[in-house]
Amino acid sequence: MKRITLAERPTGAPTDRNFRLEEIALPNPRDGEVLVEIQYMSLDPYMRGRMDDAKSYAKPVNIGDTMEGGAVGRVIESKSEKFNVGDFVFGQLGWATHGCAHETLLRKLDPNLAPITTALGVLGMPGFTGWYGLSELGRPKEGETLVVAAATGPVGSMVGQIAKAKGLRTIGVAGGADKCALATSKFGFDHCIDHKAYDTARDMNAALKDVCETGVDIYFENVAGKTLDAVLPLMNQFGRIPVCGMISWYNAGNLGSDAGEGKDKLPKLWRSILVKQLSVNGFIISNHWDLYGQFLREVGPMLTSGQIAFEEDIVEGLENAPNAFIGLLEGKNMGKLIVKVA
Amino acid sequence: MKRITLAERPTGAPTDRNFRLEEIALPNPRDGEVLVEIQYMSLDPYMRGRMDDAKSYAKPVNIGDTMEGGAVGRVIESKSEKFNVGDFVFGQLGWATHGCAHETLLRKLDPNLAPITTALGVLGMPGFTGWYGLSELGRPKEGETLVVAAATGPVGSMVGQIAKAKGLRTIGVAGGADKCALATSKFGFDHCIDHKAYDTARDMNAALKDVCETGVDIYFENVAGKTLDAVLPLMNQFGRIPVCGMISWYNAGNLGSDAGEGKDKLPKLWRSILVKQLSVNGFIISNHWDLYGQFLREVGPMLTSGQIAFEEDIVEGLENAPNAFIGLLEGKNMGKLIVKVA
Repeated sequence: MKRITLAERPTGAPTDRNFRLEEIALPNPRDGEVLVEIQYMSLDPYMRGRMDDAKSYAKPVNIGDTMEGGAVGRVIESKSEKFNVGDFVFGQLGWATHGCAHETLLRKLDPNLAPITTALGVLGMPGFTGWYGLSELGRPKEGETLVVAAATGPVGSMVGQIAKAKGLRTIGVAGGADKCALATSKFGFDHCIDHKAYDTARDMNAALKDVCETGVDIYFENVAGKTLDAVLPLMNQFGRIPVCGMISWYNAGNLGSDAGEGKDKLPKLWRSILVKQLSVNGFIISNHWDLYGQFLREVGPMLTSGQIAFEEDIVEGLENAPNAFIGLLEGKNMGKLIVKVA
Repeated sequence: MKRITLAERPTGAPTDRNFRLEEIALPNPRDGEVLVEIQYMSLDPYMRGRMDDAKSYAKPVNIGDTMEGGAVGRVIESKSEKFNVGDFVFGQLGWATHGCAHETLLRKLDPNLAPITTALGVLGMPGFTGWYGLSELGRPKEGETLVVAAATGPVGSMVGQIAKAKGLRTIGVAGGADKCALATSKFGFDHCIDHKAYDTARDMNAALKDVCETGVDIYFENVAGKTLDAVLPLMNQFGRIPVCGMISWYNAGNLGSDAGEGKDKLPKLWRSILVKQLSVNGFIISNHWDLYGQFLREVGPMLTSGQIAFEEDIVEGLENAPNAFIGLLEGKNMGKLIVKVA
């Protein structure tokens, strides 16, 4: 089998020297375990955090270990009564062609309900993140205005579509005219702001202001940086800011004084939280899997009926995962980034 | 009657040149109005915000107008059926010896239930602020650890005592050994950290760490600045930060780049909110008066029984209000600052 390990920790943006492609022997499943041939693996921004040796909400990947990640594939050997050879499963199997995991860590997929790749995106962790953060922490109300960045990504597109279904005005932020066109045509955003068209947060703020005539009630935070600076002055009283990520700062090391845009702004932020009576809630989706069934019951039928659209960006070959991941952090992908492994 | 007006807007810390003591004719109450002889007026940090001509949650005081503030006194003339001459009342009557207000804007006080000065502090807006923010937004649970600054002030002392009554470990922050002694002896804080004993947030963080063995679950924010920096690294997962004020930044003008400690910290703060899944909620107590009855029913008996203590710092004479207020922003008062007007 092949796998990609963490060769060294990045400083700033990752490079391909941080990764190593290796061939190792196939593992032998023990009692209760299952061997999976991976067909598709997921690439997600959170993986950047796992590459740092910093205290965070999850353990870092050790040097020499397989890069962490979700994957879908087919069972090729089973010592579990829950899974048969041929079953499709999802699990955190890593950047690899094969993975071995205990039955308790795998979830069976029905390929007739939805393509199995959707378990990595719209019906998986990213879609669930958008649904949870918006529904539980965003408390959306009809007629309100929502802003979300990475609007064509699996989180942002879910947020925008659920918000639209609940009667909100939805404003997306994305990088480039193509993504903005996709955001409005496919995901139903009322407007999409191209952040690459604005050099400063001030200019971007002016553009957002034009399309948020009544201010912003929910800012779903997944990028921070310039977008945060541009949106914050537009927040309405009693606005909500669910925080699930801050991609634009992920390559900024320890988020210290070199973190670029956004520094020097803490007192202004704190004052906004107070005077606008904002509710800012950080959340990590792995603590909320108890609601995943509810998510599937609600969103699954919307997907089947076509009310929820999704976009996938599929890269061929495990060996191309590192460069695809480096591009993901630069916003080069269009839609949910997935690697076709086999 | 005498009153103190806003003579000019301060830049940075207010000085006595910003205020003017004037003599004007007594107003004549119209139908439904009441004339009150003020006995005590309140001085509170929020008044600093009213002196700036900046967009905020409340209108600024205009140049030449009476400084805003709560006061208690006795009715000396009444054109209202709700109030009789001799009644004790509370109202936003301003920095003055007399005030005239419509009956709908006054609340009758029973001096036999508690001293009328308590309507300005422990049983008034500051006490209610502490109770509301802690109960509704802090979501305190037995065994947790709480930190609050200005621990001997009317907000901090209420927060600490309510938290203690609910079984939390309470850590106060205050300026000077005298205040720290009062915080532990009178208000039952388990520990009180003297912020004046530490030059940097880092040193203060180390001192707090020693007494917060299991981290901090609730940081009740009323001062920001060095204390925020010192507490933030100690916040536990799922911690709560109700934000009612940020006194240490009030003299920093527009809270821009000259705001001193706390700048350069936004990315770190944002990351803490995310990875620790914090809930940060700004609140302005004037939007929550619907719960004031509940507050009085809960805290009133605790005050009568002695379970809730309070400390008042009473300054004599309306003419001394400006200097007392300037001192308040420097932390010179010991307990709730009140001006005895008559």
